[in-house]
Amino acid sequence: MHDGDPGPQVLVDRASREAASTDWSGHRPAGLPDGVVRARSTEDVVAVLRRATAERTPVVTRGAGTGLAGAASATTGELVLDVSGMDRVLDLRVDDQVAVVEPGVLVADLDAAAAEHGLMYAPDPASAALASVGGSIATNAGGLRCAKHGATREAVLGLRVVLADGRVLRTGRATTKGVAGYDLTALLVGSEGTLGVVVEATLRLRPRPRQQATTSAFFADVAAAARAAVAVTRAGVQPAVLELVDAATLEAVDAARGTDLRARGAALLLAQTDGEGAAAEAEAVLAAVSAEALEAETTTDPARAAELMTARREALPALQRLGQAVIEDVAVPRSRLADAVTGVEEVSRRTGVRIAVFAHAGDGNLHPVLVVPEGEDVLSGAPWDAACQVFALAQRLGGTLTGEHGVGLLKRAWLREELGDVSMDVHAAVKAAFDPLGILNPGKAVVDG
Amino acid sequence: MHDGDPGPQVLVDRASREAASTDWSGHRPAGLPDGVVRARSTEDVVAVLRRATAERTPVVTRGAGTGLAGAASATTGELVLDVSGMDRVLDLRVDDQVAVVEPGVLVADLDAAAAEHGLMYAPDPASAALASVGGSIATNAGGLRCAKHGATREAVLGLRVVLADGRVLRTGRATTKGVAGYDLTALLVGSEGTLGVVVEATLRLRPRPRQQATTSAFFADVAAAARAAVAVTRAGVQPAVLELVDAATLEAVDAARGTDLRARGAALLLAQTDGEGAAAEAEAVLAAVSAEALEAETTTDPARAAELMTARREALPALQRLGQAVIEDVAVPRSRLADAVTGVEEVSRRTGVRIAVFAHAGDGNLHPVLVVPEGEDVLSGAPWDAACQVFALAQRLGGTLTGEHGVGLLKRAWLREELGDVSMDVHAAVKAAFDPLGILNPGKAVVDG
Ligand SMILES: Cc1cc2nc3c(=O)[nH]c(=O)nc-3n(C[C@H](O)[C@H](O)[C@H](O)COP(=O)(O)OP(=O)(O)OC[C@H]3O[C@@H](n4cnc5c(N)ncnc54)[C@H](O)[C@@H]3O)c2cc1C
Ligand SMILES: Cc1cc2nc3c(=O)[nH]c(=O)nc-3n(C[C@H](O)[C@H](O)[C@H](O)COP(=O)(O)OP(=O)(O)OC[C@H]3O[C@@H](n4cnc5c(N)ncnc54)[C@H](O)[C@@H]3O)c2cc1C
Repeated sequence: MHDGDPGPQVLVDRASREAASTDWSGHRPAGLPDGVVRARSTEDVVAVLRRATAERTPVVTRGAGTGLAGAASATTGELVLDVSGMDRVLDLRVDDQVAVVEPGVLVADLDAAAAEHGLMYAPDPASAALASVGGSIATNAGGLRCAKHGATREAVLGLRVVLADGRVLRTGRATTKGVAGYDLTALLVGSEGTLGVVVEATLRLRPRPRQQATTSAFFADVAAAARAAVAVTRAGVQPAVLELVDAATLEAVDAARGTDLRARGAALLLAQTDGEGAAAEAEAVLAAVSAEALEAETTTDPARAAELMTARREALPALQRLGQAVIEDVAVPRSRLADAVTGVEEVSRRTGVRIAVFAHAGDGNLHPVLVVPEGEDVLSGAPWDAACQVFALAQRLGGTLTGEHGVGLLKRAWLREELGDVSMDVHAAVKAAFDPLGILNPGKAVVDG
Repeated sequence: MHDGDPGPQVLVDRASREAASTDWSGHRPAGLPDGVVRARSTEDVVAVLRRATAERTPVVTRGAGTGLAGAASATTGELVLDVSGMDRVLDLRVDDQVAVVEPGVLVADLDAAAAEHGLMYAPDPASAALASVGGSIATNAGGLRCAKHGATREAVLGLRVVLADGRVLRTGRATTKGVAGYDLTALLVGSEGTLGVVVEATLRLRPRPRQQATTSAFFADVAAAARAAVAVTRAGVQPAVLELVDAATLEAVDAARGTDLRARGAALLLAQTDGEGAAAEAEAVLAAVSAEALEAETTTDPARAAELMTARREALPALQRLGQAVIEDVAVPRSRLADAVTGVEEVSRRTGVRIAVFAHAGDGNLHPVLVVPEGEDVLSGAPWDAACQVFALAQRLGGTLTGEHGVGLLKRAWLREELGDVSMDVHAAVKAAFDPLGILNPGKAVVDG
């Protein structure tokens, strides 16, 4: 803290505590957190954590609160440390393709700052306009273009992190390569606020592709679309975006937008290639999907591309018109994509819960979206039962229960099944190495629940 | 161990102990290790580590022994665990673009196996034909094409690791995405045998680029070549390979091969672009470098490309004809490349040690090669003094003392300077979480020395 600075104020009014009590997962904690601190500087964060250590207060770090796993939920006895106000881009070094930012910068704002210099910040979660860089680092957020350009981990070169006891740790570096010491940077990425508080990040930017081509293809069923996605892979093409949209989603988009997507097929595959080879790669994609496609087209015209992408861009809003949309994010090996989508359809039939699916087909990462009537609890009864069956399905297919959203509170019960006992023990040991008192986001992400 | 299996034999003959006592760094340990075990299976490794734990025996895991940091050096009181015999490719799933391998598989063999299916294993250390996949994982090896396609970390999806006490840990998964739990996979990559023994790896393969274009440009000095490398970056092109070769290296190649490289310029930049956009990107590279180049050309003809690449390919053999070649691997932010190369030239002048430089310019990763008369100790006196000045230079320029080879034994003295006290403490805590008795490669990689 600066001289004369009384240190960060703890807000205890009900409105502040309510606003900071949960994320977008639909989770409602039993109580409200005891207070909220809005940090403005590293010194603020240090002061909060020193005091929390002295008083053994559990601290829940909060970015923009858009998480989908309850990882930022906070309850009675806990203090919320809101870092969304630390939102400056500190440095943007064009020739080094590096940005240094505070954690509260929004993902889309950083990308826009990079775009001014012909660069991009590659990780593009659908929540980019709302989510903080710190939160996306703490969840290792993915997005549409990460099949080619990498998820958040691949974009983080170094971090400044305040540890539970207030010590300030620097990890990584400002160079693209470097192997001195353990990769603590990667260990912290995706650690969901359980190992330390990110107060600064050194991020890798990439050249912003100047060319882009978009391909759209309709299929008779999801299995055919999934086979076509594999055919793209076999053709040796790496699209930046390769999305699969199922019949239930197409119907919802038709209902919302007056389109005729479902009439054209029961599954849609959308591919975007980028870079100097974009058009040539799009031709290769078109050739690869043509064997089974009912219809297919490729365009380099931005307006037409935006039209083709409607089904994917409008998928979530369209489903949200039908009820509460709960977005899951299981992942499977690419070759099991069709099995996963048809498996989810069976879960839907079995449980009576409406589930639509769109998927990052290039990564084998599915978003089964449970559509639940407004007012109904999404985290119990049939909806939760359906979600659990989807998790089990993904694990059975050799995949994971979470490809990008994290474990948080909601998926803890499935963690041991996926990681195994030895791994759970190692996780506990690593957690203790960073946070021996267990005050950072306790009960989340790496423990049974 | 299988029934009736007496467990792995400990070789104690002098020849075995000598052969397993060091790596390619030039380091000579004071004594010989007590024995060598050649593991054939995970069970062998488990048996060795259980016993080592019971008896508190320090264990040095050994792959192919091509390391350049003394990380695989072993001495009196230590047991070498040689896993090079565990060398099977267990599975290669073409549509998933995944390979599952034992640690002893050679990097080039894996890449060749992938090539049969139109795929590639991207990490390509210059030692690929000799180095093991396990050793390259344990050092997070880089290579020529990692600027575009990633270093070893980006290629490792999951690991099977035997911990110090013999427990078997599985990390990661067979999907490209997944965020359940901490990224223990990345933590283990680059950990130089100090956290566990890799007995199996699930690796990401990528489409093998079908097109390639090579550009070569000569410059009046290194600063101009470095500016040209930055110009390539500014042009928004991401070459797979972008190498800079200095005058001392050109002279050595001329002497070895009868070429006239040095007459054409005092620095050479070589770029390879790949994929469907290779030729178009090569045109962009050519345009970007032309402003300052003395001469430049681009080709898609493989024979001509091989000719152009001679200067880089033959650099090390050519320098080795002049004496012992000690390869350093500092990295700096890309924009400081010219400062780094000219800084190394000054070190050479100051110390009287001949130093040639070639660099992965795309990564800011330099290989200053110290050429030391045969017979002279490279790890003391003027040569070592020169190396230390190069480390300090890199750190002063905001870089790192090791971009790809690791810390091992030889660079420990520089680690604290680079990482800081808090990080050193966290490293010790993480090490203790995995290996509380400190029996895995003690005194290496993450400790002061
Ligand atoms: C409509 C919608 C679409 C989405 N699409 C995607 C998507 O495509 N891909 C994807 O991966 N996710 C997606 N998400 C999930 C979510 O937006 C991301 O995980 C996001 O990156 C979280 O950022 P946040 O700032 O909102 O984090 P929060 O929700 O505030 O926090 C998430 C976790 O990070 C921790 N945390 C936050 N800041 C810090 C910090 N500075 N230091 C340490 N820990 C911290 C919190 O403690 C918590 O554990 C989506 C969410 C919504 C609502
Ligand atoms: C001519 C030459 C060129 C080189 N070029 C490059 C280059 O371009 N890029 C680059 O990055 N490196 C390069 N290297 C360095 C070296 O080849 C790499 O670091 C290589 O990957 C090491 O593999 P190895 O099997 O020889 O490992 P080793 O030397 O046997 O061991 C290296 C380290 O890994 C540990 N280790 C080995 N196997 C395992 C395992 N299964 N589990 C846990 N720990 C293990 C050892 O304990 C040791 O700490 C070069 C070396 C030479 C001699």
